Amino acid sequence: MRDFSADHRWLSINTATLRGAGPLDKIVEACARHGIRAISPWRDQVAGIGIERMAQLIAEHGLALSGYCRGGMFPAMDAAGRRAALDDNRRAVDEARALGAACLVLVVGSLPGALRGAPLSKDLFAARNDVRDGIAATLEYARTAAMPLAIEPLHPMYAADRACVNTMEQALDLCDALDPSRNGALGVEGRDRAALGVAVDVYHVWWDPKLEAQIARAGRERLLAFHVCDWLTPTRDLLEDRGMMGDGVIDIPQIRGWVEAAGFAGYSEVEIFSRDDWWMRPADEVLATCILRHRTVV
Amino acid sequence: MRDFSADHRWLSINTATLRGAGPLDKIVEACARHGIRAISPWRDQVAGIGIERMAQLIAEHGLALSGYCRGGMFPAMDAAGRRAALDDNRRAVDEARALGAACLVLVVGSLPGALRGAPLSKDLFAARNDVRDGIAATLEYARTAAMPLAIEPLHPMYAADRACVNTMEQALDLCDALDPSRNGALGVEGRDRAALGVAVDVYHVWWDPKLEAQIARAGRERLLAFHVCDWLTPTRDLLEDRGMMGDGVIDIPQIRGWVEAAGFAGYSEVEIFSRDDWWMRPADEVLATCILRHRTVV
Repeated sequence: MRDFSADHRWLSINTATLRGAGPLDKIVEACARHGIRAISPWRDQVAGIGIERMAQLIAEHGLALSGYCRGGMFPAMDAAGRRAALDDNRRAVDEARALGAACLVLVVGSLPGALRGAPLSKDLFAARNDVRDGIAATLEYARTAAMPLAIEPLHPMYAADRACVNTMEQALDLCDALDPSRNGALGVEGRDRAALGVAVDVYHVWWDPKLEAQIARAGRERLLAFHVCDWLTPTRDLLEDRGMMGDGVIDIPQIRGWVEAAGFAGYSEVEIFSRDDWWMRPADEVLATCILRHRTVV
Repeated sequence: MRDFSADHRWLSINTATLRGAGPLDKIVEACARHGIRAISPWRDQVAGIGIERMAQLIAEHGLALSGYCRGGMFPAMDAAGRRAALDDNRRAVDEARALGAACLVLVVGSLPGALRGAPLSKDLFAARNDVRDGIAATLEYARTAAMPLAIEPLHPMYAADRACVNTMEQALDLCDALDPSRNGALGVEGRDRAALGVAVDVYHVWWDPKLEAQIARAGRERLLAFHVCDWLTPTRDLLEDRGMMGDGVIDIPQIRGWVEAAGFAGYSEVEIFSRDDWWMRPADEVLATCILRHRTVV
């Protein structure tokens, strides 16, 4: 297992962690001030400053993109809705490629309408079919753009509104069905990555009794991203009460050990949604804490 | 699948659903007023009026007990803590037997201290070991009392503080390891129930892509209880924001179809924790709604 204690060269900052810090150019500048080598931006934050400006900032600061957030949200009640989702995912692939991201992270979606509190369906099977078909279609496009797609299994508490793929096993079953040969995404810096893999976020998967086995099953080719934060007790909000690494109950080094044993050698990406705590703090304090915790408890 | 539309003879009320309605004798009387044939009481509520009084009320109203809530909470940091948990579980078995419950429901526990917001460990493996050993010891005692034990897999959002058994598959693996012969709990009304089985609560398991298969695997012998409520979008609290059947996104009839196809023919037990909604309403309104929804959407 890699030793992170001496520096933070393998730390990436998911820019949602700094949602309280203003527009994305300010966030990038804060990261650069702290010697952060990699980030993972969200589309809405990129749209806020424009993709050309973002590409310029990335070049200027020599940043790597450990991922791009996010594609997905495939299910819809009708064909027009599903087509619109595919169009949007193609745009996401294009943006990820334009910015040189290592992968496009997929939050696959679930029951149409649920995210705005007005679910139009209770049919998880239909949602899962839309997800499978949506990933298949997007994968075809993503292969031409040499952009790996990373399915992010989300915690089961998001099964209604954000993702109906909720375990590593389920995500890897999809990967094996849609990308059985683990064909690499050609042209992506020559890495031995499958065109379709997973983003492992400890927050979503730490509870899973089959986690170690499924990480081993994923293997180097399908482990496209590794996200860290922590699970607080109590957790006061289903979405925006994630903890800083070390402040919760997740045995992060154990999980990192498993992904590294499977061959993962990329960034540990910090992604913390924290409306009442970390989003309220100055960017410099958040980043200094991320760096400290990365070196001590990740 | 049984037709529930004409009456509510297969409706059971978990008394936590009426936490806002005062002491347990008032709750029992309200249930009796509405022609409820079965309930499932919580130990703290029983303790509030005394077990003799409760036994008297049950006899007086001719009530069945679809379950008794709850045993479990096995993990501890030291041997004394584990022994204390076993003592408490034996008392729970005795109480369940004294009241004639169909099973003792086990919420197995997880990281010691986490429930009071002060986790003493991050070791889920140790917690799972304590759970396995605690169930094994309690099972030995429960067999002598002919009291079936029902492991309730809890939603993964409770993995830190309430239960480190979070899927049907995991619960059934435990059942198969500890009660491989599915030996019945002799003396319990001659039913073909295993000594160790599961309580299937739709709230905890609805999201699981393997649910149908695992319900089939459980079969009649291990399906000891079936709990219903609903998953609201949004869900505003991790513990106390469950919905009334029909108000959320769970396809309850589909899941009931699966458990009945596997041979389950017992009560549909309504268990709703709802601090800001149902617990604020009069017991008669809550019960009338439970009955209506039982007949229409369960």
